[in-house]
Amino acid sequence: MEKERTLGLINRAVRDLDAYHLAPSETPIKLNQNESPFDWPEEVKEEAARFCRERPWNRYPDFIPKRLHEDLASYAGATPEQILAGNGSNEVLLVLLVSLMNRAAPVIICEPTFAVYRMLITGLGGTVESVLSADDLTFDTAALKNACRNNPGSLLIAASPNSPTGSALSESQVREVLEVHEGFVLLDQAYAEFGGFSAVCLCEAYPNLLVTRTFSKALAGAGLRLGYLVGSPEVVREIRKIKLPYNINFFSEFAASLLSRRRELIRERVRVLCTERDRLYRHLQSLPFDTCYPSEANFILVRTSKCHTLNNFLSREGILVRDVSSYPLLKDCLRISVGTPRHNEILRKKLDEFFSTVK
Amino acid sequence: MEKERTLGLINRAVRDLDAYHLAPSETPIKLNQNESPFDWPEEVKEEAARFCRERPWNRYPDFIPKRLHEDLASYAGATPEQILAGNGSNEVLLVLLVSLMNRAAPVIICEPTFAVYRMLITGLGGTVESVLSADDLTFDTAALKNACRNNPGSLLIAASPNSPTGSALSESQVREVLEVHEGFVLLDQAYAEFGGFSAVCLCEAYPNLLVTRTFSKALAGAGLRLGYLVGSPEVVREIRKIKLPYNINFFSEFAASLLSRRRELIRERVRVLCTERDRLYRHLQSLPFDTCYPSEANFILVRTSKCHTLNNFLSREGILVRDVSSYPLLKDCLRISVGTPRHNEILRKKLDEFFSTVK
Repeated sequence: MEKERTLGLINRAVRDLDAYHLAPSETPIKLNQNESPFDWPEEVKEEAARFCRERPWNRYPDFIPKRLHEDLASYAGATPEQILAGNGSNEVLLVLLVSLMNRAAPVIICEPTFAVYRMLITGLGGTVESVLSADDLTFDTAALKNACRNNPGSLLIAASPNSPTGSALSESQVREVLEVHEGFVLLDQAYAEFGGFSAVCLCEAYPNLLVTRTFSKALAGAGLRLGYLVGSPEVVREIRKIKLPYNINFFSEFAASLLSRRRELIRERVRVLCTERDRLYRHLQSLPFDTCYPSEANFILVRTSKCHTLNNFLSREGILVRDVSSYPLLKDCLRISVGTPRHNEILRKKLDEFFSTVK
Repeated sequence: MEKERTLGLINRAVRDLDAYHLAPSETPIKLNQNESPFDWPEEVKEEAARFCRERPWNRYPDFIPKRLHEDLASYAGATPEQILAGNGSNEVLLVLLVSLMNRAAPVIICEPTFAVYRMLITGLGGTVESVLSADDLTFDTAALKNACRNNPGSLLIAASPNSPTGSALSESQVREVLEVHEGFVLLDQAYAEFGGFSAVCLCEAYPNLLVTRTFSKALAGAGLRLGYLVGSPEVVREIRKIKLPYNINFFSEFAASLLSRRRELIRERVRVLCTERDRLYRHLQSLPFDTCYPSEANFILVRTSKCHTLNNFLSREGILVRDVSSYPLLKDCLRISVGTPRHNEILRKKLDEFFSTVK
């Protein structure tokens, strides 16, 4: 078959996608992906290195990573039957969309938000019902509840705390939505350690609530590609059926177990990052930004008409932040991850320099 | 929402799936998963261990694993633009089904074959057009070409060499199918190193040909969960769009590159396993099996009315093989992976013992 005709056989929903892309960069201060700025201590990495020398590479991982599910359950405050681990919460999201998305009904998402939701929904042939944030970029819960009432049976996906806005749903807001919505509610809580209400405790009472969590943020394991689902045991049992078997490689499985057991260190680092975030926020407020949005996560969203110039300036100075100005409602916005205290100090100085010279 | 109603919201195609399951086992001689019986030498594992100590865990992997794609291309005889790496060929298969499956047309598969094809197709809401093997369990290419003619535009999935039968398509058979079929042809060549015709070289001439390969068999990396797609650059570019970003963890990415460059060792081990397979085949033929099927892979399929008794006997003796008697056409069949020379010798002795005592 010739190429033109062959390409025509690829599902239109996939062909119509833009390629999701980030330019690779060797920039020394990386404040563009909301990673934790802290690597793990040597003794943790050494323990994993030992495992990788001893464990036979030629053998498949466990069919179900039992120990990992136990450790994740213990970390998140759930039971192992409520847990499903995946290669990043992205894989979990894909499996959930395949299982829960009904092509006849739109998927409700709250925009601006993580761009992969819309990409996967449309790529899978679904449609999006977008509920826009309020003017201050907090959740518009009235509009959200309205969308729920108008679309019973729809899947609702909300990130809380949300990226790139930094705003989170409170416990009462989560409960309100759960009381109203007659469909699954997927809360992506990748940033839960940094703020907002952690909804895992509601999974038993609300079987239509699903929560995803990740190792890529507070747990400083973005390189492992490890995320997990928490839900009611009955629902998780169904989702497991479509999940690919043996999907977690032995290294990430072992390493994630290790990390989830180092709770004191995780807590300590979250404390440092929250303090740094609040300090950075006060500093940003002292500068002539149009708006600095309060954040319950490990990043801060700012708006300035000098968005493009500032981004270029920081990049030349070796600081990479994320231009999110093409997102809905986010014209002129940059998202800045909170880095190490030293990196944040350099950032503050460079921002001072920028605003003192650029008029 | 109450649990009953919530479960009703999960797509029926997923609920109707049986849970894919293998009982975990601590059996010392594992001949049930077609893994390579050889682990990697210490110096290879040490190099990966060093990387895992040095590489920051808190940073995301590369958006596109460029070096890995280059190494895979070089190993498979393709260009990097033709390659897409995934978490096992299962993830690649899922992405291909999402991109290429058309719910209006069935997916053609050649059964008996790898059970995950049917599981994913039906779980995604598609239907299966099953082309059964001939009586000797080789491909029935006449029936296959017929199915292609009757279902233009359908996706065709064939494993060659096929598991659990061990039979493979020849070059002329692959070309015949490609000449007839007006849709995508996905050849799962997980066992290509052991026999049959390796079709990667046809991807340029036939843009509707897609080949998947894996690290789980000849490359002795089942623990890494690493598989890859080879196709024409134009088609691979489209498939990349729906692929999850950053999906390969840094360890598997690095380790897979390492392994793919050790071609001499891979070739040597393949030689050993093929010699062992042929030796085992001759031995099996000397025993009172109903049929021993010739194999171009690293396992052998046998049929015996004593299937169940034999399986239990071997299991008690510490040898795990795979009961595939529930697969279409495979009543009373066991699939036996080729192990190390020592394990194969133990197996042969135990088989002799079984057939000399059981009547």
